[in-house]
Amino acid sequence: MDVNKIALILERECRLERDQPILVGVSGGPDSLCLLSLLARLPFPLLVAHFDHQLRAESAADSAYVAQEAKRLGLPFLAGSQDVARFAQSEHFSIEEAARVLRYRFLFAQAKEHGAQAVAVGHTADDQVETVLMHLLRGAGLAGLRGMEYRSVIAEWDAHIPLIRPLLSAWRKEIVEYCAEQHLSPLVDASNQDPAFLRNRLRHALIPYLESYNPQIRSALWRMSDVLAGDEAVVRQAAAEEWSACLISQAEGSLALDLARLRSISPGLLRAVLRKAIITLLPGLRDVDYAAIERARSFILQPRAGQLDLVQDLCAFAERENLVIQRRGYSRPDPSWPQVEAGPDLPLAIPGSIELPAGWRLSAHWVSADNFSGFSDPNELSPWEAWIDADQLPGEVCLRPMRQGDRFQPLGMQGHSIKLSDFWINAKLSRRARAAWPLVVSAGQIIWIPGFRLAHAQRLQKNTRKALHLQLFRVG
Amino acid sequence: MDVNKIALILERECRLERDQPILVGVSGGPDSLCLLSLLARLPFPLLVAHFDHQLRAESAADSAYVAQEAKRLGLPFLAGSQDVARFAQSEHFSIEEAARVLRYRFLFAQAKEHGAQAVAVGHTADDQVETVLMHLLRGAGLAGLRGMEYRSVIAEWDAHIPLIRPLLSAWRKEIVEYCAEQHLSPLVDASNQDPAFLRNRLRHALIPYLESYNPQIRSALWRMSDVLAGDEAVVRQAAAEEWSACLISQAEGSLALDLARLRSISPGLLRAVLRKAIITLLPGLRDVDYAAIERARSFILQPRAGQLDLVQDLCAFAERENLVIQRRGYSRPDPSWPQVEAGPDLPLAIPGSIELPAGWRLSAHWVSADNFSGFSDPNELSPWEAWIDADQLPGEVCLRPMRQGDRFQPLGMQGHSIKLSDFWINAKLSRRARAAWPLVVSAGQIIWIPGFRLAHAQRLQKNTRKALHLQLFRVG
Repeated sequence: MDVNKIALILERECRLERDQPILVGVSGGPDSLCLLSLLARLPFPLLVAHFDHQLRAESAADSAYVAQEAKRLGLPFLAGSQDVARFAQSEHFSIEEAARVLRYRFLFAQAKEHGAQAVAVGHTADDQVETVLMHLLRGAGLAGLRGMEYRSVIAEWDAHIPLIRPLLSAWRKEIVEYCAEQHLSPLVDASNQDPAFLRNRLRHALIPYLESYNPQIRSALWRMSDVLAGDEAVVRQAAAEEWSACLISQAEGSLALDLARLRSISPGLLRAVLRKAIITLLPGLRDVDYAAIERARSFILQPRAGQLDLVQDLCAFAERENLVIQRRGYSRPDPSWPQVEAGPDLPLAIPGSIELPAGWRLSAHWVSADNFSGFSDPNELSPWEAWIDADQLPGEVCLRPMRQGDRFQPLGMQGHSIKLSDFWINAKLSRRARAAWPLVVSAGQIIWIPGFRLAHAQRLQKNTRKALHLQLFRVG
Repeated sequence: MDVNKIALILERECRLERDQPILVGVSGGPDSLCLLSLLARLPFPLLVAHFDHQLRAESAADSAYVAQEAKRLGLPFLAGSQDVARFAQSEHFSIEEAARVLRYRFLFAQAKEHGAQAVAVGHTADDQVETVLMHLLRGAGLAGLRGMEYRSVIAEWDAHIPLIRPLLSAWRKEIVEYCAEQHLSPLVDASNQDPAFLRNRLRHALIPYLESYNPQIRSALWRMSDVLAGDEAVVRQAAAEEWSACLISQAEGSLALDLARLRSISPGLLRAVLRKAIITLLPGLRDVDYAAIERARSFILQPRAGQLDLVQDLCAFAERENLVIQRRGYSRPDPSWPQVEAGPDLPLAIPGSIELPAGWRLSAHWVSADNFSGFSDPNELSPWEAWIDADQLPGEVCLRPMRQGDRFQPLGMQGHSIKLSDFWINAKLSRRARAAWPLVVSAGQIIWIPGFRLAHAQRLQKNTRKALHLQLFRVG
């Protein structure tokens, strides 16, 4: 183990800033003790963090041991502890998965709290080979075969603080030698021998078996993963460029891709674009099913009527020149609906108008009493038109979609208002259309729901001197 | 086995032309018999070819069996036979390698002779999985892990006729079932059980062992190779574009790449460009050594004086803003040499001049006898200047490099010419400089070798009335 090599990896591969603190996750085993020892010889402020999984009787003693190591090095020590077994049971996770989730949650929360630039963990070249084999056994693509990275930002843990693995090219054998040279006494974790864990079976059975075919299999697989990591980045870059070129439109649960362009690109790029489409719509998804991608590829070459099932509740269909991929429940906004985007209230200039999506327009102007006498009942008008008593406006007139807690007193309802949600139930408007339906408000009060009803307080009355005339209509 | 699926693969993946003949390589085993039977149900003219490797006592009988099958189907039969074991010994090949070389030589020679559009062979999905595992065991990159292709043009066999593998997605199990259904009686090749062959050990030991980790490992690896094939094409395309952007100059044994650009690209692209550089200079190379690429990457990040060893006799060094990669024996043309590019003769306008690389120029003009009387011996002139008797020019005056069979009669040599190669030996000019040395010729005769000697026949004589005055010199 060469401390200069680690310094180079921290600079080039982990891309760390000098003098900024690193939080080191230390289990007390050889890998993390070696990592801690090497980092302590370099000019970075360090924080030592240990997470007690409460899976073994001696785990509290392990924590105390790591605390003592930190003290020996004069470093701050951060301890976390949680009942992993119970968490696994309640969340239906495997023990390995539950341990991973709780440990990283703890490490990243501590890193954030203490302003660390990175969380460092002790994954080794042997871990890398085991990881690659695990992916290989399930038939993963490049993103799996490339294995772990020296530096990765994992949104699940933190959007900015990277996880770094400075020992990723160091073999366990070198680490054990280093520990002996440095008189470090690593803890022994008996669970590393437990064949119940796939990783242990790979380490103790599969890899030795593969060595009978190639005695250098470990370094061969390590090199393979290193080269594939570079290839994966090339494909990712090409796919990102192609994605921008293919994407026609994107909404929360739906997106449209350019069918002609999808047909013209190579199978590799097409698969990458389709994977990205699916992950965009199902961000929690870990692996994108090969068969789903192949179904989509065939469909793109020869689109047919109807919907194609993809993954979970995602489906795809051809619509004019587009391939639309969306969640099954989703139906896209109908251009026949007036809709207003979420955001601050849109103030309405009077006289003036506001343009809404899909060619809708709200226009407003003042009309004096001379010009509207003769109307006896405003409800005889089109529901897309409203006459409002200007003197009953409590404030500026604005347009906005519905908000939590909105109430409404429809014309004709005496004395009290109702919840807007109750009004909608009777209005028979689809739930999706409601969400962005334009409401005309004044000082927070709904004064008109275009297409439906005027508010009682703002109705024209006998003594109205001036009216606000509103109309919502589609242009062209 | 579905004949429509095979038809689709032939069209989409193998990209065959309808009605053009296919040569089918048939060993007589289940895979090739199944392939032949399926192809015979489609509208392609077929040629059946069998190669006898002479490795087993029954091999001649096998050939007769395949001939009989061809006859049964009413198809032409082409037989080849060679002593593979002897060839392996004389060429220092493994038996597998020797068998492969002789078999494909035979198949492609026959395909070419009979105008076949493709050579079809019976590789199956199981063969694909075995191939991928073989590459994996030696730690190959994408180009190995993607396995075999439905269609590939292999320059080693033929620059135009593709090798196609229509059964690449068919499992051996399906093929055996098909043979039974169709009452085909495949030959049994005992060597498929011989554990001396790595492929057999994979088939009978490694794959069953991996199935204890994932019972679906075969299809998982097949899918992996299929996806990686697409990714490999994406990387190859990106690398080809990057190659054009990086390449400064390229000659037979040397090339120069833009160092600043190499430094700016991603590790994956950089590796791909370096691999391409090495393969360009060493076209026979199968695998490019990982360590050599990594040495080159480090060198590019921090160039130092001196040469870096790459692979075989290739070395690299930094020269101004370039990374030069070349064979160790190679020295690039010296700009102090006049050189002329290969190609058609360059006619010389008189008066006029021809520009040569590196600032060299050949100028020519006519001089009448009045102006040159006084020269007694043209050899007193600079060797870069020549006075030629215009009446002794047999035709148009041109410039060109030496050609096979060139002869020359140097000034002073009476009665006979000598081989140009013999002249060069005495001239003490380096072999590399000779190849592109500019020769002034007229009607195929060398009349002047600039820097060396005038031809005897074209010397100025007492009765010369008009001379051609030539000068070769560097401008600037």
